[in-house]
Amino acid sequence: MKKYIITGFSGFVGKHFLDFLGRSEFESMVLGLDLNEPEFDYKSYRNVRCNFQKINLLEDIVVKDIIKDFLPEYILHLASFSSVFNSWKTPIESFNNNVNIFLSLLETLRELQVFPRILSIGSSEEYGYINEVELPLVENNSLNPVSPYAVARVAQELMSKVYVNGFGMDIILTRSFNHFGPGQREDFAISSFAKHLVQEKLRGAEKCQLATGDIIIVRDFLDVRDVVKAYYLLLENGKKGEVYNVCSGQGVSLKDIIIKMATKLNIKVDIVINNNLLRPNDNPIIIGSNNKIRRELGWYLQYDLNQSLDDILNYWELRLR
Amino acid sequence: MKKYIITGFSGFVGKHFLDFLGRSEFESMVLGLDLNEPEFDYKSYRNVRCNFQKINLLEDIVVKDIIKDFLPEYILHLASFSSVFNSWKTPIESFNNNVNIFLSLLETLRELQVFPRILSIGSSEEYGYINEVELPLVENNSLNPVSPYAVARVAQELMSKVYVNGFGMDIILTRSFNHFGPGQREDFAISSFAKHLVQEKLRGAEKCQLATGDIIIVRDFLDVRDVVKAYYLLLENGKKGEVYNVCSGQGVSLKDIIIKMATKLNIKVDIVINNNLLRPNDNPIIIGSNNKIRRELGWYLQYDLNQSLDDILNYWELRLR
Repeated sequence: MKKYIITGFSGFVGKHFLDFLGRSEFESMVLGLDLNEPEFDYKSYRNVRCNFQKINLLEDIVVKDIIKDFLPEYILHLASFSSVFNSWKTPIESFNNNVNIFLSLLETLRELQVFPRILSIGSSEEYGYINEVELPLVENNSLNPVSPYAVARVAQELMSKVYVNGFGMDIILTRSFNHFGPGQREDFAISSFAKHLVQEKLRGAEKCQLATGDIIIVRDFLDVRDVVKAYYLLLENGKKGEVYNVCSGQGVSLKDIIIKMATKLNIKVDIVINNNLLRPNDNPIIIGSNNKIRRELGWYLQYDLNQSLDDILNYWELRLR
Repeated sequence: MKKYIITGFSGFVGKHFLDFLGRSEFESMVLGLDLNEPEFDYKSYRNVRCNFQKINLLEDIVVKDIIKDFLPEYILHLASFSSVFNSWKTPIESFNNNVNIFLSLLETLRELQVFPRILSIGSSEEYGYINEVELPLVENNSLNPVSPYAVARVAQELMSKVYVNGFGMDIILTRSFNHFGPGQREDFAISSFAKHLVQEKLRGAEKCQLATGDIIIVRDFLDVRDVVKAYYLLLENGKKGEVYNVCSGQGVSLKDIIIKMATKLNIKVDIVINNNLLRPNDNPIIIGSNNKIRRELGWYLQYDLNQSLDDILNYWELRLR
């Protein structure tokens, strides 16, 4: 039976990773760690023996005891302060809760001489300012991070490589692009748009307004269920020290997504740009190449955009009815 | 009168920067900050009104008061745990005392809305693993840091650029290559070799043994007095957000340096390689290009290798006699 520690367990991706393990033919044992209690029922999975412990990963003495007791074979390190926006407001917090929690985890493992496979989650934000001729972005593209969050992610990646080459640790790295799907918190754009449209629909509106930031920007959106499959495969068969883009390979604008959802709901939408929601320095287009992960791990996209949007709208309909 | 804060004041470079200001035609005001008391007499400079305060830069409340009172026009940020070797033993300490002290300083300045020019000192270690066809290294070469120390330096550099572009701060960056000169601590190779050879000479030996690490490696050594002139010019006229190599542009092996010093002292030396002093992953050759700083700032090398070695040997002779 495989033993996983999942940090940042209580978030959106943690829940979907557990769903994935639950659908698997094999039994697994999971210990979830997070600052916050999960809002999902992690005890109910047929094939997963799951426990949860509420901790701050910066408390290395607690983490040390946990690891010594549980002896994980895999660590899926999802814990992160992943908001670019907030990283501009509190750069030090962003840095501590990205690089420093990771570094502290690695040092605890090194001290204990316990060496599980670790998946370190990075971000497409690491590419930073992009020249359009470089699209789609491949893993050996240069990194020009333009926010405190992105710098923290690059530092985490570089540090991982040092721990692989200098200390022989078994770390695989991702640069994960925007993901979405049912259950995502509504402070993410698509989830919040979906919720608003479904709300309006349910109250019988034929037409509604929607306040947005810049919706012309094109992003590489990926269904969270494809993301967790990638993470599972990377933990199984990824190459130590290697970085993998986790992305759909396709670009779509937020505007197109809004129009698609409105069409599905048969509601007219009047988009109102709110300047407070605009972010500075945003790249107009970000699209990644997923050639490497497809070629090396046989991963492929199972959820197309229409499927994902249907599921997100259904999720909100169930929640809001 | 120009007002400088110098962090990491009590070290080798801080002292030489003060010497440089002392030789200048203009008066300056300096506030030195360091964890340790300086061992030099910082009160004795003719043209420099200098004070010192013993502090830990991570204590941001203390730093805030100091900056609010002093209102520096320039900050020369020398503070760093700069040992690559120690960064392998205590990576978290290395990270905290490189990136985090710098980030904390920037946040304090941003909070106070005090925006001096800042010189952020980086390292040739940032280039990391080098392909010899890339020599001499220019500033837009790729960075492949291979030690925790080097990752911290890269993170500091990337974060500086974010603060320049995102918050409009006035930061200039260096990648400084190996420096040496009179007064350097003897845990640095050349200084320790010089001390040992002078010691042997003074006790009348015609021949001596010298324990070393790998002395075939070729490095770009620069006299500290040329370094501080570069720092002065960068603070005066460097371009905001730009990185500058600070290097001699010439490579020399430690072996050649040892032979030159032994010849000057007229002592025969028997070099004994000590495996404990070997470092893993060392590049065989590192040489930088100083074209950018010469072209943009009119900086040039004033101390050639022979001059520097003479001065180092004289320094030890004075100390040891």
